Amino acid sequence: MDLLKKLCRIEAPSGNEGAMTEFILNYIKNEKKRWGKQPLVYSGDSFQDCIVLAFGKPRTAVFAHIDSIGFTVRYKNELIKIGGPQLINGCLLVGEDSKGKIETKILLDKKKNTIKCDFKREIDRGTMLTFKPEFRESKNYVQCCYLDNRLGVWNALQLAKTLKNGLIVFSCWEETGGGSVAYLAKFIYEKYKVKQALISDITWVTDGVPHGKGVAISLRDSGLPRRSYINRIVKIAQKSKIPFQLEVEGTGGSDGNVIHRSPYPIDWCFIGAPESHVHSPDEKVHKKDIEAMVDMYKLLLKEL
Amino acid sequence: MDLLKKLCRIEAPSGNEGAMTEFILNYIKNEKKRWGKQPLVYSGDSFQDCIVLAFGKPRTAVFAHIDSIGFTVRYKNELIKIGGPQLINGCLLVGEDSKGKIETKILLDKKKNTIKCDFKREIDRGTMLTFKPEFRESKNYVQCCYLDNRLGVWNALQLAKTLKNGLIVFSCWEETGGGSVAYLAKFIYEKYKVKQALISDITWVTDGVPHGKGVAISLRDSGLPRRSYINRIVKIAQKSKIPFQLEVEGTGGSDGNVIHRSPYPIDWCFIGAPESHVHSPDEKVHKKDIEAMVDMYKLLLKEL
Amino acid sequence: MDLLKKLCRIEAPSGNEGAMTEFILNYIKNEKKRWGKQPLVYSGDSFQDCIVLAFGKPRTAVFAHIDSIGFTVRYKNELIKIGGPQLINGCLLVGEDSKGKIETKILLDKKKNTIKCDFKREIDRGTMLTFKPEFRESKNYVQCCYLDNRLGVWNALQLAKTLKNGLIVFSCWEETGGGSVAYLAKFIYEKYKVKQALISDITWVTDGVPHGKGVAISLRDSGLPRRSYINRIVKIAQKSKIPFQLEVEGTGGSDGNVIHRSPYPIDWCFIGAPESHVHSPDEKVHKKDIEAMVDMYKLLLKEL
Repeated sequence: MDLLKKLCRIEAPSGNEGAMTEFILNYIKNEKKRWGKQPLVYSGDSFQDCIVLAFGKPRTAVFAHIDSIGFTVRYKNELIKIGGPQLINGCLLVGEDSKGKIETKILLDKKKNTIKCDFKREIDRGTMLTFKPEFRESKNYVQCCYLDNRLGVWNALQLAKTLKNGLIVFSCWEETGGGSVAYLAKFIYEKYKVKQALISDITWVTDGVPHGKGVAISLRDSGLPRRSYINRIVKIAQKSKIPFQLEVEGTGGSDGNVIHRSPYPIDWCFIGAPESHVHSPDEKVHKKDIEAMVDMYKLLLKEL
Repeated sequence: MDLLKKLCRIEAPSGNEGAMTEFILNYIKNEKKRWGKQPLVYSGDSFQDCIVLAFGKPRTAVFAHIDSIGFTVRYKNELIKIGGPQLINGCLLVGEDSKGKIETKILLDKKKNTIKCDFKREIDRGTMLTFKPEFRESKNYVQCCYLDNRLGVWNALQLAKTLKNGLIVFSCWEETGGGSVAYLAKFIYEKYKVKQALISDITWVTDGVPHGKGVAISLRDSGLPRRSYINRIVKIAQKSKIPFQLEVEGTGGSDGNVIHRSPYPIDWCFIGAPESHVHSPDEKVHKKDIEAMVDMYKLLLKEL
Repeated sequence: MDLLKKLCRIEAPSGNEGAMTEFILNYIKNEKKRWGKQPLVYSGDSFQDCIVLAFGKPRTAVFAHIDSIGFTVRYKNELIKIGGPQLINGCLLVGEDSKGKIETKILLDKKKNTIKCDFKREIDRGTMLTFKPEFRESKNYVQCCYLDNRLGVWNALQLAKTLKNGLIVFSCWEETGGGSVAYLAKFIYEKYKVKQALISDITWVTDGVPHGKGVAISLRDSGLPRRSYINRIVKIAQKSKIPFQLEVEGTGGSDGNVIHRSPYPIDWCFIGAPESHVHSPDEKVHKKDIEAMVDMYKLLLKEL
């Protein structure tokens, strides 16, 4: 869990993922000699802050978004949301501007309907703030801000250790509705003719999907993946002994929605551990569900 | 109307269009020997559940979506909408899960704001349900669920009988905002250099567009097609003796919106018969408007 | 300001930009002999009503949308909005239909929640109406409908006079959420490998961005551009003596959003003078901000 803890600490709100990109590229450079197969690594200008790893002859691509929710400082320390963070009065935020490091608290004024922070001086316009991470681990759970989607990234990096054939795609801007997945879809389809995608991301604990009952395979959310592809995945899952749960929702979305609407006929399915305290500093995931997530991805990348 | 009746009976909600694809491919296989010209038929993996028919040297593509609205079963027989079906208490739904065929009724609980069905057992998560079809035909009208868009499909198949030059595109996911038209636009533009599209779909009876006054040519809805293209179409219509009505709306959309936003400069225009009882089990269309729709498409595919 | 006045007078609501396209093409034909460098001019069918000018070896593309907000006539002189015009009772509108020129007034019925116009006869369905332009100039300000975005177009045409390397892109449908920028992004990326874009458009005067304090560089609106690109731009601006202001908003959007979601990894930044009385017949911009806008574009096209 040490790697996960490190990932949770990196500040990388949507549009400003550079620090995360650098961390992952460094990690790959140092670790890949221990991996079963050496991937081709695509990054740089034509990928903005995204990274693609290509192992062997890929049939399936795993998408893990590296951005997080957060806040942008507007004028006079007013805050604007990046994506959909929970608004909790007194919640700690961190960041940095031209005058130095920042640690501050959210101030909600429900009468005026404004979100501010209480920093002692005016923060530079456009400064991005993120939740202050406090990583907690117990026997059964891990808890921190940004498990969504540092766990999805972590899962992809576990998968990389033994992956023989497949693509791993680290994407940006997921929390704000996309901005990289359309060109990443283009790349994987045109360069590798890959038509199958899995979305390595974190979902919600609900009345139908509790903690500890396995990784969630989403049959739909606001996006409706092609049923014949989903059915193939569920069949593989059913034959395995890996604990999983079927999720059905009418709202919420992921990089899957962007793949869906892209000009490439790529099937997609969201598969990820469920969390409680979504989009707060206290996102919480059961360790068994994390384990099932890694196992399920290993299996599917072989069988699909 | 026998073909239309058959089309209305097929269960093919957005994302699960496979049965419809199979029916149409079979129909084409059996019927095309009677057609004036033999088309190239594109389908299979690179088209997901879509089909493209290419006749001669195409200048114009006709898009007809093969999916319908419906419901997905969530947990404990709760229902989630697929697209925008009308919610009518007691309305009959059909489907199938691992335990067998299902026929059930919608139960609306307006206090709790939930939609359920009253089936005797818990239906498999993710099962898709559609309206139970009851096809009705009178002197002037046809009535059934899913005239939107089985009539658009039927229209395209009538057109196929005598089409010399043109593309017919059967698309998926229209009722849920798209998911295939972007790559279909790519295909028709790159492979056939086609820059003109017509949307063979069903529209609404309104204060300006009554039953029986002809096929509606839509000047706009939530999407604004390029006026110079629309003007060319209206001129051709005005010179003909085919009854038509001009529609102007600020809401609603179609596959046209997806073509509009695709990375291809393809003009589009929505042309279809108007219906009442939209998105209910009782969609109703005047036979004269259907006739005018077929005639208008035949004319436009020649003249445009 | 004579050219700006002419631009404001042209009727070119979204979807019906033809008159504007013609004006600009004519202007280019007549003026380009006085320009420092002769551009390649792309227009015609594959660009619908858009125009692209290519100067030298471009690294950056400037997008200026040529469409405006307005109204479509529905049935019985009811009006539907094109984009988001302010609704002002009695406001003058102009247009033309098959029976001749139209000048009429907006009639708001707040009880019935309808928008109508008071023309003496029924206007043809689908006729497009725009604000009647009244161009006003004082020592410090210009004021007219459609400064958004005739000023952005004007700015691009000023830039053209001395531009050595760069693309100027005149786009359509911006006020209604896009419809041309996706294929224009494709063109500039595939043909010129251009990965940098600037959005030459007009923004809002707010509590943080007053009149007369310089051109606004937007750090974000509903779209979040990549921060590393924005930072490069702000650094160039800071080293210059051109007055500028940093804007941070959570709502609003531009052609930048469409570039953002396109399948091409193109960075973008919105840079434009702020206006008051947004989307009304009285849009007002400070002349110093216009001057700063032109200077900033000249500088950035050299330095980026």
